[in-house]
Amino acid sequence: MNSAHFPANPDGAPVVGVIGAGQLARMMQPAAVALGLHLRLLSADQQDCANQVIPDVVSGRPDELEAVLGFARGCDVVTFEHEHVPTAVLERLVESGVPVRPGPGALLYAQDKERMRERLGALGLPCPAWRPVTELGEAEEFAREQGWPIVLKAARGGYDGRGVWVVGDADSAARVIEQAQQRGVRLIAEQAVPFVRELAAQVARSPHGQAVAYPVVETVQREGICREVYAPAPAVDEAHALEAQRIALSIAKELEVTGMLAVELFQTADGRLWINELAMRPHNSGHWTIDGAVTSQFENHLRAVLDLPLGSPAPHAPLAVMANVIGLDLPDLYPAYLHCMARDPGLKIHTYGKAVKPGRKVGHVTVLGDEYEDCVERARHAAAFLRGEIDE
Amino acid sequence: MNSAHFPANPDGAPVVGVIGAGQLARMMQPAAVALGLHLRLLSADQQDCANQVIPDVVSGRPDELEAVLGFARGCDVVTFEHEHVPTAVLERLVESGVPVRPGPGALLYAQDKERMRERLGALGLPCPAWRPVTELGEAEEFAREQGWPIVLKAARGGYDGRGVWVVGDADSAARVIEQAQQRGVRLIAEQAVPFVRELAAQVARSPHGQAVAYPVVETVQREGICREVYAPAPAVDEAHALEAQRIALSIAKELEVTGMLAVELFQTADGRLWINELAMRPHNSGHWTIDGAVTSQFENHLRAVLDLPLGSPAPHAPLAVMANVIGLDLPDLYPAYLHCMARDPGLKIHTYGKAVKPGRKVGHVTVLGDEYEDCVERARHAAAFLRGEIDE
Repeated sequence: MNSAHFPANPDGAPVVGVIGAGQLARMMQPAAVALGLHLRLLSADQQDCANQVIPDVVSGRPDELEAVLGFARGCDVVTFEHEHVPTAVLERLVESGVPVRPGPGALLYAQDKERMRERLGALGLPCPAWRPVTELGEAEEFAREQGWPIVLKAARGGYDGRGVWVVGDADSAARVIEQAQQRGVRLIAEQAVPFVRELAAQVARSPHGQAVAYPVVETVQREGICREVYAPAPAVDEAHALEAQRIALSIAKELEVTGMLAVELFQTADGRLWINELAMRPHNSGHWTIDGAVTSQFENHLRAVLDLPLGSPAPHAPLAVMANVIGLDLPDLYPAYLHCMARDPGLKIHTYGKAVKPGRKVGHVTVLGDEYEDCVERARHAAAFLRGEIDE
Repeated sequence: MNSAHFPANPDGAPVVGVIGAGQLARMMQPAAVALGLHLRLLSADQQDCANQVIPDVVSGRPDELEAVLGFARGCDVVTFEHEHVPTAVLERLVESGVPVRPGPGALLYAQDKERMRERLGALGLPCPAWRPVTELGEAEEFAREQGWPIVLKAARGGYDGRGVWVVGDADSAARVIEQAQQRGVRLIAEQAVPFVRELAAQVARSPHGQAVAYPVVETVQREGICREVYAPAPAVDEAHALEAQRIALSIAKELEVTGMLAVELFQTADGRLWINELAMRPHNSGHWTIDGAVTSQFENHLRAVLDLPLGSPAPHAPLAVMANVIGLDLPDLYPAYLHCMARDPGLKIHTYGKAVKPGRKVGHVTVLGDEYEDCVERARHAAAFLRGEIDE
């Protein structure tokens, strides 16, 4: 549907343009419905799942300048559900006069891991050892300093474990470097941090500089994909949780992030924190906030990019557990509802309206409670049942 | 947009048709987005506020049989956000084979106050004294038994105080009866219950007979319009709260209600409860559940009409206060956000995307907490500020 069909909202609410129309854009809609904000999507594919639940959809790819400029006309602000927008397009968008939040200058550090490492290093923030790699010799030299394995990462374009290779020897490194060179992909090498757990610290920051920090969570990845999130992180003491929040608030401030920022962190056995990745948008580690916090990450993202005062990130319950539903070979999620809902009336089930494919995030489940073992069992069971991994 | 544009959901989720496209349909959308359900609206007016946030909208009036049948084609179930659908249309809809929930046989008791009083009386449930009135003599006779004032009500079609007249003498009664006769409106007379407070008991019931009861709330009306809701009702002891829940569960069961049922009750100084009105849909007295309960009334309505197991109605906080934003003369709600959000980061603000008109419900505010005076002050202040009644 064309945006020409949408007159200004009768009660004066603004139009927020969202580049991307996957589940993160989709999950902005409940917050927008409540606040009376009008969302407009730039959708590259008619099948994008946010298109099912948001009427104002403009078709176009995020690297098509004219499509992006047309979409942005009439928006009060443009924001993102992913980072895959070329800087040149972003700069022209800014020149067109529409506020872009986060701005290209901030977003660069979520798009380009090499720029991110340079900048965070210059700020004195705790990062793994790293270096740019253009040839095997550089990787070998780095491995002599750090020891094998090392991590090779595409500087741009990776997500959910794509674009990340843990290599244990020079031969493996050579293969990754050769393939990267063939595709014109820039690489960096990073120390393989011997972490005992992964954490995420989420903050929202608005253009006028207000910021709020959510409780620090533990995330559990498998094959590069987030599987479970525990909020707050059960094995992290208060000092380290505060340190993680301070790191995220510093990054948001120094990089002038607007909207939600997620800082993915490693924690090593000595308690130390190491910055892994940045995301400047709502993030999988914060899906628990939809049901578990006074203000969800999606609502605070919208409030932040509109430069509205931020909402309380306080949780509703002592703890929340979120488990992703990762597609397997069951095509329909819906028939599993009956069993899951009957077994556990406290479950919060979310499905994204996506065609189910193996390995694809198609939904998530959140459980609030006061005892981790119970919440983890319930969330994990429901996620496994919905994907068809178990049948009782 | 025509429903032909909407193929079956790729993950197998059902299509729920909703007759009506105002704020109650609009507030179903966040629950539907989360559960991955597809909503289709029957909208009588392009300006209906749910049309802004739900893509699949069929234009038509609820009393146009062909429009209703066309809309229902392809729906897995049809439900309602209001009761204003002729019984003949509902019966044809049922004959067409689509499940209609609540069914016409139940909905009748929310549509017709005379049938409702007959039925609840036969069930031995506590109602005010009443009688049908077709001429002044009957009203005078009723007033001799009950004392003036008496309440005259249109048997069908009223809402938000419309169709209800408190009359203090025979002259006033004569005017109401004459106008009703001219318009062909059937009347009943009811005892004016000398209540000390108004309560509402909400339950959800599914076709297979499962039911859940929400905490009983106190509602504050002004000029026939709900202004504030306190959950749970602060001045009601546990025995009377349980009694109110039992009344609502009995009505849901005996009338075979499916979906949400709200029973509006009067409480007199002696503690006794009197049934005032029924609504078989999400209800203003349950808006607090969006932010304040594990499962909102909108989610449980959708789960119930789909015959899915119901979700927990447990509250997130010891208490919740909801204040309606009633339009005044400020056309734009949005500029007031800045002040309200900055003053109180814990507020949950909801606006409905409606043109602001005096006396119209255009939004609501919910505050969760553990101290009534504090929550009431905060919710009341925000609602007054948003409508432009106060400016600081």
